[in-house]
Formats: sequence, structure tokens, C-alpha cells
Amino acid sequence: MAREITKRSEDYAQWYIDVVLKSDMADYAPVRGCMVIKPNGYGIWENIQAKLDRMFKETGHVNAYFPMFIPESFLTKEAEHVEGFAPECAVVTHAGGKELEERLVVRPTSETVIWDKYRDWISSYRDLPILLNQWANVCRWEMRTRLFLRTTEFLWQEGHTAHATHEEAEEEAYRMIHVYRDFAEKYMAMPVIAGRKTEQEKFAGALHTYCIEAMMQDGKALQSGTSHHLGQNFAKAFDVKFQNEDKELEYVHATSWGVSTRLIGGMVMCHSDDNGLVIPPELAPVPVVIVPIWRGDDEQDRVLGRAREITQDWDPLFYKIDDREQHKPGFKFNHWEVRGVPVRVEIGPRDCDNNQVVAVRRDTGEKTALSMDGLEEQLRKLLNEMQQGMFDAAKKRMDDRTYTVDDYADYQQRIEDGGFFRIHWCGSGDCERKMQEDTRSTIRCIPFDAEPEAGQCLICGGPSERRVVAAQGY
Amino acid sequence: MAREITKRSEDYAQWYIDVVLKSDMADYAPVRGCMVIKPNGYGIWENIQAKLDRMFKETGHVNAYFPMFIPESFLTKEAEHVEGFAPECAVVTHAGGKELEERLVVRPTSETVIWDKYRDWISSYRDLPILLNQWANVCRWEMRTRLFLRTTEFLWQEGHTAHATHEEAEEEAYRMIHVYRDFAEKYMAMPVIAGRKTEQEKFAGALHTYCIEAMMQDGKALQSGTSHHLGQNFAKAFDVKFQNEDKELEYVHATSWGVSTRLIGGMVMCHSDDNGLVIPPELAPVPVVIVPIWRGDDEQDRVLGRAREITQDWDPLFYKIDDREQHKPGFKFNHWEVRGVPVRVEIGPRDCDNNQVVAVRRDTGEKTALSMDGLEEQLRKLLNEMQQGMFDAAKKRMDDRTYTVDDYADYQQRIEDGGFFRIHWCGSGDCERKMQEDTRSTIRCIPFDAEPEAGQCLICGGPSERRVVAAQGY
Repeated sequence: MAREITKRSEDYAQWYIDVVLKSDMADYAPVRGCMVIKPNGYGIWENIQAKLDRMFKETGHVNAYFPMFIPESFLTKEAEHVEGFAPECAVVTHAGGKELEERLVVRPTSETVIWDKYRDWISSYRDLPILLNQWANVCRWEMRTRLFLRTTEFLWQEGHTAHATHEEAEEEAYRMIHVYRDFAEKYMAMPVIAGRKTEQEKFAGALHTYCIEAMMQDGKALQSGTSHHLGQNFAKAFDVKFQNEDKELEYVHATSWGVSTRLIGGMVMCHSDDNGLVIPPELAPVPVVIVPIWRGDDEQDRVLGRAREITQDWDPLFYKIDDREQHKPGFKFNHWEVRGVPVRVEIGPRDCDNNQVVAVRRDTGEKTALSMDGLEEQLRKLLNEMQQGMFDAAKKRMDDRTYTVDDYADYQQRIEDGGFFRIHWCGSGDCERKMQEDTRSTIRCIPFDAEPEAGQCLICGGPSERRVVAAQGY
Repeated sequence: MAREITKRSEDYAQWYIDVVLKSDMADYAPVRGCMVIKPNGYGIWENIQAKLDRMFKETGHVNAYFPMFIPESFLTKEAEHVEGFAPECAVVTHAGGKELEERLVVRPTSETVIWDKYRDWISSYRDLPILLNQWANVCRWEMRTRLFLRTTEFLWQEGHTAHATHEEAEEEAYRMIHVYRDFAEKYMAMPVIAGRKTEQEKFAGALHTYCIEAMMQDGKALQSGTSHHLGQNFAKAFDVKFQNEDKELEYVHATSWGVSTRLIGGMVMCHSDDNGLVIPPELAPVPVVIVPIWRGDDEQDRVLGRAREITQDWDPLFYKIDDREQHKPGFKFNHWEVRGVPVRVEIGPRDCDNNQVVAVRRDTGEKTALSMDGLEEQLRKLLNEMQQGMFDAAKKRMDDRTYTVDDYADYQQRIEDGGFFRIHWCGSGDCERKMQEDTRSTIRCIPFDAEPEAGQCLICGGPSERRVVAAQGY
């Protein structure tokens, strides 16, 4: 089996596509910009969903479902929102064999259809807060698409909350970006910088947007999750008022927050290598593959029998035994390596004699002999070490490529090699746009942990109070 | 709080709508025929998903995701399929601000887009079987809609499998209708009749369709799940061939099978009563609600403290304590009764003295005093009894209203009162259509367990080999 994966050093963009296709995560769809998510990719999404969903419920949220079709007029009710999304919409004009009286857009995001209902559901402070989340598909008609990273249709979750006060909404928006940060770091082994987007980069219709930004192996940034404080904008657009404790009518305060299947693209570009996909154990559809090694029927019976014996009480979703007869062990090693299975366990006749197996970590290639006794527990320990090891390696990579720069010429040169740049910025949109035109880089975020530090704007030399993080992004 | 639920005996259709709305399961959407699924309804869907998904995985299936947009031309490739679905499609004609070159339909079901990919994925018998499932939203533009039972957009799962032989595909289609039967009976406490659809009622493009049919409380039938043996129809339409073990090219054999949010409508109509929703414990988002009863602050502290103490080690998804201060216990009893929470636990000051609580079953209203010691276990036992009790009651209702009839005049009269009718049928479409025109009833299925029995067709008097089940349906 030819690997046919382009090396990262040769062509990073092609490497990414090769990994996604060869690892059997996804395939192109017949409709431009859409994708098919295959089981090895969808299994990762299922794990992302399960883990995030638990975190949402632990922070008091419940799930609901709103329609995918939105009357076109809804989108125009919030001025910034329509400007941001209308050009990207897919529009249903005919249904049931007739032309529709009002055209419907396929949701690019659900604020409008949700706030239209919140008007019916909210009348008193006793009805607040509403803490809803929805798992759904959405559609944004993108010109340039890339598997997982930017597709016309994608899967995501969108939280939509309603609150009685500005402070409560602010607390919620801030809480949820930290849920995302914790999720990315703990389960995806992907270190991120959490902070605030600039005015230019915020969500269409928000007061402000919080984000997490991750560094890919080419040094570019990937926006991996956002949480928006929407203020009273949508409440005003959809006339959602409540009676407060003093019996006065007020507009409701809102947040929304989401992550998408884009996270899977981030996982690929953060961890994978020239041999294919590397999946963090916490997200692996199959954490362990067992490859029995035999020559001839006697050995086959013995080795396979032993493999089945060892695993008989294991959770069936924890492992898979590759007992295919038509393929050699080397073929199988490659097969599972490309697909990113975290740990491969090899069992041959000699291993049976010695009551041991050889476990091979996908991220480092490191081999360890493990006793067959209590093997499941040892493997779970190894997987935990691997999870931590992957985070540590990614963190080191990010730290090593995070630079502090104060000279614009220097910045313009170095930005082409990738990396995060801690720069001073005066806060003006003009400087931001100039930097973007000059370097195709943007201010990714104003980190929460940026210390106050007086300095001069990298672009205009004007006064700056703290450093922001700039990078080229996806 | 006014209950405002119409009695079943007064207006069954209105009762259904009242229960769905008052129980906070769903609401109408701004787009005609669509619905909003609220947390108390979506939580039931989450439990349905979790349970079915495990059953699918235990039978060897994995999940994937295919695009919601299908090129309009795909739909026309299978002749019966296009006839069945084209009139119901929503069509996207514009996207990204432009008119599309080829119009896209929003999937009414995914056979076409999936078999288009299977052509790329299948070349040898070694690639088979493919056992995929997808959880997705679909759209069928219906003229008459009803919350959960028939909505323009609905949520469902669709299994799509590919096999090397007719026998294997047949086995799969047959296996999956039994998975549905087991799911309906075990988790939904809803007895069903499993069998085969007639030619007229089968899926557009199938060789034959298996189904499960449940009886609602008005005696009407609800088709609750279907499994189709598609033969080689889609393989031929999409040119999907494989090389068999003898190196000959053959068309691939297919099945598809699905259940949808319609199941929730079935659950409502099978179990609920004039006081509102009744949720089978296995599907309840919150199985137990604890209502503390107090007068004055001292009692409040004592009773609430005791409730929190008892439950401190319980799974937080197992129960909810209704500690709202602005509402009286009677209001809370009603609130949770309408919403279908299976067991209500009352704790007052006297209960604290006696180290006991009162548990009230939602289905029967039966009250039981339970010791506070080991309460969680006792409640789980009570919930299991309730689950079984609900199944038994529904089974008895179905059996009591299943009639054997051999006289067409008699049938025409009795069918109006509802029920399942075991009738003889010659197998002709003409008789089937005549019966439908005369009585608005249809042949729901040819049960798997129908014994061979010679008789005369109820409609034409021609020879019949076994009885089928006829009823008015949803």
C-alpha cells in the first residue's frame, strides 16, 4: 500500500489534505464545498460531542433544537448580522413543487430564529436565565473551502443564552470560552490562547467576542472556538423584553457560543505527522488496535486465541483485533498508523511464550514491552501518558514559536515563517487593516493574561497599553 | 396554573397538541410545518439516540455524515424514488448571492448521495459489507403537519448498508426491524407489531419494506420504524459494482432503515393521559423530581436540608429538587405532572420525623411510603416496575382492541371506532385501494408471526393465505 502522503516540509497544505483523505476521516461530496465525514472522522466528532456536552450540562445548560430554515426577513432585523451573513446564505425558493411566498435561508447560525421564539417564552425575570444549546448543521456558502477547516455545510454546537443583566451575560460568555479552553487542552491536547477579538474580527452583531486560538504546525493560527456577548442587540431586533424585579420592562441580554467540526481540522494540523493522522487518546474512536503476528495455522490459532483471551472482558469500544488473513502485519501496522490509532499492540508467538506484548505509541513510535497480566490497565496508563505527552509537545512548539517583536520591518519578514507575535497595537482599525494588507496577518486576540505594559504600536508608533497576539491564520 | 388540556374523550387530536405544548416538549416555528423541540422534548430524543446508537454499535454499525444538499439530478436516477420524493422536496436555487447552475434539494432521505459515494468506495468483496448509520435532519414538504408526527423538517437516523449478496442484505433488513421492535418495547414501553408492508405501502425504490406498527390510545396505528431491502436498485442507478470472490463483477445489494422524532409523538399518544405527558422512565430526561413541603423558614431549612443530604451522592441527571420559593407544593405537583416526570417524591416535616418519603408514580398515581435509607435504589426499582407496568398496560390495550373480522360491512362500521383488524386479503392492490377509499384504513402490515390460514379476502372474497393487520393510521 503506497502511503502517498506529501511531507509537511514539502507542501504543508497538500500534506493536510493527504492526511485527511488517507486516514479515512473524510471524502469530497458531489456538492461544491461540502464534505462526507467518514466513520474514522465522525467517531472523533462523537467523542468531541460527548465530552463537550457533559461540560455544558455540568455548567447548567440543556439541549434543544430549532429549525434549519429561517425566513429571509429575520436575517435583516439585526443590521450588523445581515451584513455579516446574508452574502453567505443558501436560499430555498421552491418547496413542495411551488415557489415559496417568502424565501427561506438555510441557517448560517441560529440567533434570529431563536430570539424570535425567546420573545414568546420570556416575560418575567423568573423566566431567566435561559441556558440552551443545540447540536446542528449549518451552511455558509464559502468561496474557498478546505475539508473540516472551512466547508459549506458543517456540524457544530451553538449555545444561546438569555439573561436579566449585562453582568450575568458577561459572566456566561466568559465562562464558556474557558469551557472551550479546558476542552481543547484536556481532550484535544491542543494548547490555546484565550482572549478577546478586536472590533474588526468580532461576530456580526456582538458587543464583543471571546476566542481561543491554537497554533498549527506551520505556525499559523486557527480560531477554534468563539463566545459572544451579544448585549441587547438581538433582544432589540426581536423585541424581547422582560419585567424585572422592580416591575420595569427591560430588554434581555444575550450570549452565543460555538465550536464546530473545524476542531477536527485543528486536531489534524496540531498533532499529525508525515506518516498520517495522530489522534489524542481521549478523542480516539478506537484507542487500541491489536495486531497478532503469525506464520502458519498453528501459530495463528495460538496467537489469535491468546489475543481474544486477554481482551475478553474489555470494553468492546476500547480496542479492535485486526485478524484479517489476507494482509501481512507490516500492512496492518501502516494501515492503523495512517489512521492515527493511538496505541498498537503487537502479539507474536514469542510474546505468548513470555506472557507479554509490545505496545507502540503512535505519537513517538516508542515501543514498550508490557505484561499480559493487567494489560488493559497498563494500556490506559500508557494512553494517559501519551495524552499528556502530546499536550506538552504542542505546548513547547507553541511557546518556542511565540515571539516578541517591536520592529515592523522585522515583523513583516518573520511573519512569513509563521508563529505567534506578541506586538504592541494602538487599538485602531486602520493599523489593523494596514497590517493585514501588508502581511496577510491579523490580530488573533487580546489575551486575557496580557499584563499591562506601556509601548508603541508596531504599525503607527502610537501609544499601546498591552501586547496583543498577531499571526497569519486559517 | 390552568391546565387547559382537552380531555381525550372530547377531542383526541386537540388533546395531543395540548399535551405536547403544555408539557414544554415543543413549540411552533416561524416556518410553516417546522417545529422547535424544547428541552423537555429534546431530552427524550437524546435518550432515544443514546439507546438506539448503542444497539446499532452492538450490531456492528458505525456512524458517518453525508451532506444535506443533494444535486437535483441525483434524485431522478432511481425511477420509483424520484416519483416518491420529488414532490416533497425543498429546493435551493440561490447561494452565495448567485443563482446556482444546478439546483440542490435538501435531503428528504440520503440513499442517492450515499450510493454516489459507495461507487467510489466499493470495488471488491473485501470492501463489503459497509454498515453505516447517520443521525441527521431531513426535509419533506408536507401539506398537513402535526408536531412530532409529521413535520416539514424532522430529526432521524438513517442506516445505509451495502452487501455482497441478496441473502446478507435480507438478513440485515430483517435484523434492524427487530432492533427497532426491541427498542420500542424495552425503552419506549410501546408494544408493536412487526411485519412487512404491502407493495403499495413500501418505500419508493425498495424490493420490500419491513415495519413496526404501534397502536395509539385512539386505536389508530402509527408506523414507528421501517427497514428496507433495496435489492440492487440503487447500485444499478448509481453504477456500484464489486468484484466477487470468483472475480466477476456484480451489483451491490442494499438496505436502509430509519426511525425519527415521530417516535416521540408515538410515545405521547401511547402513554399520556388527561393530566398531561407520561414519560417511560427509560426515556425520561429527569426520572425523579423531589418536591419539599414546608411552612415557614424553620421547616424550609430542615426539609430542604434533608432533601439535599439524601441526594448528595446521587447522579445529578437522575433527579431534580424543586426548591422554588415562589410556588406552593400543589403548583409544583401539577407542573411536573403535566411534564411527565415519572416519579415525584414528596418530603415534608413529618416525613423527616419518620425517616421516610412519599413516592408517587406518574402513570398510576399510586403513592408509596419509602424509607430514606437506600432511597435511590428503591426509586430505581420503582422506576423499573413503572416501565414494565406501562408496557403491560399498553400491551393489554392493544390486545383488547385487536379484532378478527371477516365481514366487510361489519369492518366498515367498526373501523371508525379504531383498533387493529386481523383480516383476510387476497394480495391485490385493487382491493387495498378500495378498502382505503371506503374506510380511510390501510393494510398496516403482514405480521411476521401470521400463521398460514386459508380464508377469503375481506373485500373481494378471493383466496387468502394469511391474515394481515388493517387499521386507520397516522
